[in-house]
Amino acid sequence: MIIVMETRDKKDIDRVVAKIEEFGYKAHIIWGVERTVIGAVGDERTKGRLLSLESLPGVEKVVPILKPFKLAGRELISEDSVFRVGDAQIGGDRLFIVAGPCSVENREQILETARIVKDGGGTALRGGAYKPRTSPYSFQGLEEEGLHLLQEAREATGLPIVTEVLTPDQVGLVEEHADILQIGARNMQNYALLKAVGKTSKPIVLKRGMMSTINELLMSAEYVMSEGNKQVILCERGIRTFETETRNTLDLSAVPVLKKLSHLPVMVDPSHGTGHWDLVIPMAKAAVAAGADGLMVEVHPRPEEAYSDGAQSLKPARFRQMIEELKPLMSIVGKTLQEIP
Amino acid sequence: MIIVMETRDKKDIDRVVAKIEEFGYKAHIIWGVERTVIGAVGDERTKGRLLSLESLPGVEKVVPILKPFKLAGRELISEDSVFRVGDAQIGGDRLFIVAGPCSVENREQILETARIVKDGGGTALRGGAYKPRTSPYSFQGLEEEGLHLLQEAREATGLPIVTEVLTPDQVGLVEEHADILQIGARNMQNYALLKAVGKTSKPIVLKRGMMSTINELLMSAEYVMSEGNKQVILCERGIRTFETETRNTLDLSAVPVLKKLSHLPVMVDPSHGTGHWDLVIPMAKAAVAAGADGLMVEVHPRPEEAYSDGAQSLKPARFRQMIEELKPLMSIVGKTLQEIP
Amino acid sequence: MIIVMETRDKKDIDRVVAKIEEFGYKAHIIWGVERTVIGAVGDERTKGRLLSLESLPGVEKVVPILKPFKLAGRELISEDSVFRVGDAQIGGDRLFIVAGPCSVENREQILETARIVKDGGGTALRGGAYKPRTSPYSFQGLEEEGLHLLQEAREATGLPIVTEVLTPDQVGLVEEHADILQIGARNMQNYALLKAVGKTSKPIVLKRGMMSTINELLMSAEYVMSEGNKQVILCERGIRTFETETRNTLDLSAVPVLKKLSHLPVMVDPSHGTGHWDLVIPMAKAAVAAGADGLMVEVHPRPEEAYSDGAQSLKPARFRQMIEELKPLMSIVGKTLQEIP
Amino acid sequence: MIIVMETRDKKDIDRVVAKIEEFGYKAHIIWGVERTVIGAVGDERTKGRLLSLESLPGVEKVVPILKPFKLAGRELISEDSVFRVGDAQIGGDRLFIVAGPCSVENREQILETARIVKDGGGTALRGGAYKPRTSPYSFQGLEEEGLHLLQEAREATGLPIVTEVLTPDQVGLVEEHADILQIGARNMQNYALLKAVGKTSKPIVLKRGMMSTINELLMSAEYVMSEGNKQVILCERGIRTFETETRNTLDLSAVPVLKKLSHLPVMVDPSHGTGHWDLVIPMAKAAVAAGADGLMVEVHPRPEEAYSDGAQSLKPARFRQMIEELKPLMSIVGKTLQEIP
Repeated sequence: MIIVMETRDKKDIDRVVAKIEEFGYKAHIIWGVERTVIGAVGDERTKGRLLSLESLPGVEKVVPILKPFKLAGRELISEDSVFRVGDAQIGGDRLFIVAGPCSVENREQILETARIVKDGGGTALRGGAYKPRTSPYSFQGLEEEGLHLLQEAREATGLPIVTEVLTPDQVGLVEEHADILQIGARNMQNYALLKAVGKTSKPIVLKRGMMSTINELLMSAEYVMSEGNKQVILCERGIRTFETETRNTLDLSAVPVLKKLSHLPVMVDPSHGTGHWDLVIPMAKAAVAAGADGLMVEVHPRPEEAYSDGAQSLKPARFRQMIEELKPLMSIVGKTLQEIP
Repeated sequence: MIIVMETRDKKDIDRVVAKIEEFGYKAHIIWGVERTVIGAVGDERTKGRLLSLESLPGVEKVVPILKPFKLAGRELISEDSVFRVGDAQIGGDRLFIVAGPCSVENREQILETARIVKDGGGTALRGGAYKPRTSPYSFQGLEEEGLHLLQEAREATGLPIVTEVLTPDQVGLVEEHADILQIGARNMQNYALLKAVGKTSKPIVLKRGMMSTINELLMSAEYVMSEGNKQVILCERGIRTFETETRNTLDLSAVPVLKKLSHLPVMVDPSHGTGHWDLVIPMAKAAVAAGADGLMVEVHPRPEEAYSDGAQSLKPARFRQMIEELKPLMSIVGKTLQEIP
Repeated sequence: MIIVMETRDKKDIDRVVAKIEEFGYKAHIIWGVERTVIGAVGDERTKGRLLSLESLPGVEKVVPILKPFKLAGRELISEDSVFRVGDAQIGGDRLFIVAGPCSVENREQILETARIVKDGGGTALRGGAYKPRTSPYSFQGLEEEGLHLLQEAREATGLPIVTEVLTPDQVGLVEEHADILQIGARNMQNYALLKAVGKTSKPIVLKRGMMSTINELLMSAEYVMSEGNKQVILCERGIRTFETETRNTLDLSAVPVLKKLSHLPVMVDPSHGTGHWDLVIPMAKAAVAAGADGLMVEVHPRPEEAYSDGAQSLKPARFRQMIEELKPLMSIVGKTLQEIP
Repeated sequence: MIIVMETRDKKDIDRVVAKIEEFGYKAHIIWGVERTVIGAVGDERTKGRLLSLESLPGVEKVVPILKPFKLAGRELISEDSVFRVGDAQIGGDRLFIVAGPCSVENREQILETARIVKDGGGTALRGGAYKPRTSPYSFQGLEEEGLHLLQEAREATGLPIVTEVLTPDQVGLVEEHADILQIGARNMQNYALLKAVGKTSKPIVLKRGMMSTINELLMSAEYVMSEGNKQVILCERGIRTFETETRNTLDLSAVPVLKKLSHLPVMVDPSHGTGHWDLVIPMAKAAVAAGADGLMVEVHPRPEEAYSDGAQSLKPARFRQMIEELKPLMSIVGKTLQEIP
């Protein structure tokens, strides 16, 4: 931490130094020409309380220096993490492609989509059983029945299942049925839920909140990891900005930034990231070119009848086209498509 | 819903009309000079599925017309809602001032603060027992012990207690100890939690998410209300923008907008809204002038030692100054300070 | 400047220290537990080049410490600046209220509005002669003729004239006809224009860009002042965010932040800030409560016929109501309404 | 335009209909279950005034339907535009790569960089002679001398020159010396400047403002084109968001959105878009994969000594690496690198 003083008044500076030492750190003063800054030396990650020094007289601001994550960062683990789910590999030299409908709507729809995903070359099937909807009057998902239908789709195709979990008490049931648990953007800072999935042994897809910083995403990964589960997959899915041509603004720079700061695999969701099916393929390609380890896309046999997110869902033919267009790109970035037998 | 067509192609238009009718609405075409628009007439609030028509050929965009909330809106209930908690009134002609520390840190601290709040003229005591912290390594609150200390503070001062609840399974315990339950900004779209507090009989302070629109805030209120609990207090606490001089950007325009759209009481939290103690008083005054029904401010006996949020906490003398400066303002806006006997 | 090192590698640190000294500053190293930081001591305001050190190996980031403005800041001039225009005072104990239409549309309209503003209690008349419009096909203003009509309105009412200038070569003509020159939000970083108005002797209303930080606003004021013109009036008019219920998000916290950082008068424009006439009065009151020295509001005799901005314009009766509601508030904040004889 | 009524009150509706007809449009009413909407049929692009109807009693909002651009849009010109500058082609099947320093600093630096760009495979040389700097105390460019040095660099290498123009009265001089004129992000809505470059015969690189929507970018292109100059190259360079790990948030979705809405070539500037040299290569690749027609990157022989933007400038070796990594990608997207003899 760096404490920037408004004044050069010795009494104010002494008071700050005394507090820094009282909290167990060493104070180090740099007398500048117009500003004096005081460094607090010690373990940065426990220094949260020093932020409160901003309320002392003469203090202009307190500036943290170190990134506050440990387990998610590159300092302890410098090698890229690679996870396995059944036959599928996440991270490393394989591109992991999760596809499927926003919601599991009925048996036919999910089985048909699973087949499309499998045949098209997808690595895993997504589908919401529990749906976080903005309106209490919207379809809230098939819930437990949805989980059973997803399991049936796995049995039919061999595709691992990715599905969202909304509350700590659903975690047990979802863990039983799914291969990968998803934390949605709205729950990225639902810490009780993060802790609950941190106690499971399944990989977690952690979606970035739509107004969460990259730092906060990594801190949420840290929550999961600090409970024991090290298999966190980070997922950029668009942030909120003033632009309205797209549903969100897909922040692809987050991919190289996350790869630099963290050893965890990074996915991109161009469906939520853009909100329009015709932007999904170009942004999927851009994501892979930027270094993403995986993609999550919405696919629906008949998007115009989808209970939700039809506008951003790919039709079967478009999904196949996407995979075909991605193939030459993969070879350039040194990845191959994971095949599911 | 209004469906804007990209083309004037009859086949495309017929296809959209057919779908609208299949979903149970009446289609109404306006042939424009360059664009054709199709209105879908019927109950707007169930029209979510029509958004998926954007995936049909020839459709440029689908534009919702009606606000999607009912219970939170002015259409069913046009009068301002007023709630009561013990001797305190929330909404109407009283200004409701909740004050206290970010976290309950220990017995002494919370009792001392409760006394300061009571003597200064505050209406209720806030204090976090369960704390949602960005870092898993930060102080997470005293939890159940914190609830007991808050109860003790109420017994000592008569102030009603406002405290945050983080998970559905905490709701019972917190409801037992607190007078008002708070849903924090990060949980504004934690729908399971909204439903859980919707089943209690205590008023709910619902904080606007830092990434949430005014519409989404009202839809989250709708979640609580649709479970039976009509006592929702909306709280603006700052949204995220590019500006870094303040911790968040306090969106005071949300006050008159919310008062126009909804009958629910509206509070403002200038502490989180600005992040700096020296901005709290001016923004508290601005909030009252804009028509707010209440304020939530952080007060700490010794902010520089606070476990969290010290930089934005008022010292006791500043809190008293705030109340004094608010008094003449209240008389102008037709409100009086709620006195707690 | 503080240079934060990624490593503790001596060679990297020596290289940074050498560059700091080569650029004429003193380097001061703090060896931390995990990070080493290097302070560069010397005149902070000329240190821009040190930012480029981020490209050296081992450097994580470069953090500026000092605010980069001088003339606009409180350090050289701690007293609030007060300007005079004819009989009107801007800043200090007077509230300065500029009102009028978005555009000067014709003689009748501007004379009628001037009378409304004068009778209602406004201090100055605004009206655009040169209009910066998003579309080249929209009404671009009456240009020079508009300036003549504004002058006529001043002669008829005694109200000083505020009007926008768009290019450096218009400055002379506008200066001749207007009492106060306005730099619009889109031109806040049009540095050639800032320098041009910096050479005039008329007060400048400098509107904050819709995605400009408070710091950048003050740096733009610095441009004007560094050319000799010290009469800059800062104007908050809403910034761009994700919220769509309002045209912009009026950042009222900017008022106390600007008053803390700068001695210049601060105005607020609740018309552009909200985009809806029914939000103008509450936000005008909030602005005054927050400490604003003035207001700029749009008034039109028949808003529904306005060439531009009708949706956010006050009708005459509403304008009078606003002034009436502001009067008791002014007495609380220690200001009185400027009367124009 | 669609006018959404708050009420079903016939008097209010009649009033709106009368105004619509008075302004020369046809009104078309859809009576909904809870809302009535009124369509105004006629040339959408001249309908700006209808927005003012929002101030009439009973009107909830006015919703524009049609995109307001003509010349920049796909409706009149559906084929992709391709421009030529000397031997270079912009748009179509060639990738156009502009590279060079932020500022022209001296003869040696610009000639050395020009050689690096030419040898590395760049198509054009960029370099600022007139610099828009946030601070009046920063280096403002070599001005006319800078233009001469750029010309010398062109003579030495054959590379066309791209340089920024800041004011209408510089346009003549810059047009004389440069091959392509650049409008910087801060000037995207400097309409006088847009009109001035619209009268030249040189291609214009129009950078998206950091606060500007995609729509506004196209409207600014429309300004240039409506003056006669149809050679506008759109450039995405990052928008402002809450994220601070990157200088701006590069909005790559803007590439396919712009390609869909407009026939104009689209470039991406990953240097300003990210602010960090180590993010430039991945984002350059992502941009090309997303369909960009060109790139603009900052290159400096010794970034740590750059007068400005050193942190985001590529060293010569990195620039060559970028081109090498782009080559296989180009063949996938069907483009080849433009060679300059």
